[in-house]
Amino acid sequence: MAAFGTKEGMAEARKRGFFITFEGGDGVGKTTQIKLLAKALKNEGHRVFVTREPGGTPTGEVLRKLFKTQNMSPVTELMVLEASRAELCENVLKPRLQKGEIILCDRFAESSLVYQGAVRGLPLKMVGAANQIATQGLKADFIILLDATTKDFASRLKTKSKKDRLDQAGMSFHEKVRKAFRKLAKADRRFRAYSANLDRQEIHAQILKDVQKVLKRHA
Amino acid sequence: MAAFGTKEGMAEARKRGFFITFEGGDGVGKTTQIKLLAKALKNEGHRVFVTREPGGTPTGEVLRKLFKTQNMSPVTELMVLEASRAELCENVLKPRLQKGEIILCDRFAESSLVYQGAVRGLPLKMVGAANQIATQGLKADFIILLDATTKDFASRLKTKSKKDRLDQAGMSFHEKVRKAFRKLAKADRRFRAYSANLDRQEIHAQILKDVQKVLKRHA
Repeated sequence: MAAFGTKEGMAEARKRGFFITFEGGDGVGKTTQIKLLAKALKNEGHRVFVTREPGGTPTGEVLRKLFKTQNMSPVTELMVLEASRAELCENVLKPRLQKGEIILCDRFAESSLVYQGAVRGLPLKMVGAANQIATQGLKADFIILLDATTKDFASRLKTKSKKDRLDQAGMSFHEKVRKAFRKLAKADRRFRAYSANLDRQEIHAQILKDVQKVLKRHA
Repeated sequence: MAAFGTKEGMAEARKRGFFITFEGGDGVGKTTQIKLLAKALKNEGHRVFVTREPGGTPTGEVLRKLFKTQNMSPVTELMVLEASRAELCENVLKPRLQKGEIILCDRFAESSLVYQGAVRGLPLKMVGAANQIATQGLKADFIILLDATTKDFASRLKTKSKKDRLDQAGMSFHEKVRKAFRKLAKADRRFRAYSANLDRQEIHAQILKDVQKVLKRHA
């Protein structure tokens, strides 16, 4: 295992592959865009692996179910998500990145900064420290933020057949999440924001163009 | 919630009650001694609450089952245990300590320093940071270490009907755990070690005497 908090850990983990994460509120279309991007990149001959947070491993999926169904304190919630993250990093992301794959991940460390930090009120420094322990320094190379206005979000929600705890928290919650993501994106050059109220194919075309650009730079 | 890492958080959490934890390898007789001590303290008129780690809350018991049945990376394991710890601190320990209860807890933060740190090899600094996030500064007031030699441990294990993953790891594992606990105890004045190869009533008498002493000092 890489040493705690060393740059060597990060460098080792990133070897060859490319790690793209999708962020944004619930119901903004992340799943759709991940599918479209995965298909397009595969068509170009890339080895692509799609996963999600929380989840993506047997232990992570148990934790996902716990997270979605149980009420828990903000710190507990953070630690449950970090446990899922740690398992994903160690058993999926790092080995696949070392083999040169492109990873598309539905949510990652930045979701904790927004949901457990900005929204649930835990200090960002604490969330950052927990992220650091769980990821052992692995960071996304490129972060796709799908940014939906509250109006877009409302119309999207109506079409979702199964609503979970987060969906029910409603509009003001969505607005809080949106603002926190936008703030984070402004301060972090790895972020690229896309307006989620465009046609899905249009959003996809924009994303694909940008990803092709960053992959070229990475190669 | 108390601020991250402040002394105010600790002081607030400790108000009035007294927090005793039981540490040591598996099968050293912690459960027996907790029962005996709880009964004795109740007989003296104290309000006593017994709990355990991982577990002690609905979320914690799900995490306990996950921990006992799934193989996971050391960092994941740490985070699963910290999630259980966070929920116990927030929903059980802090409110009960504030009401003046005496808590007897089967394992706490020191178990992570030993098992995930010294035994599974995570840096102690990392485990300490995770403990700090999960506990928000809540620490045991008095730590009872049941110290069994490998020989004692072997004879105890034979009588346990249900063996779990940790039991099966065997003697060398037990010795590693024992050494790590003894090292921790030497450096931390809250620890008091008791030889687990004495008669259970004899151990209990020693523990009760010491607890009565520290409770008197605390009052």
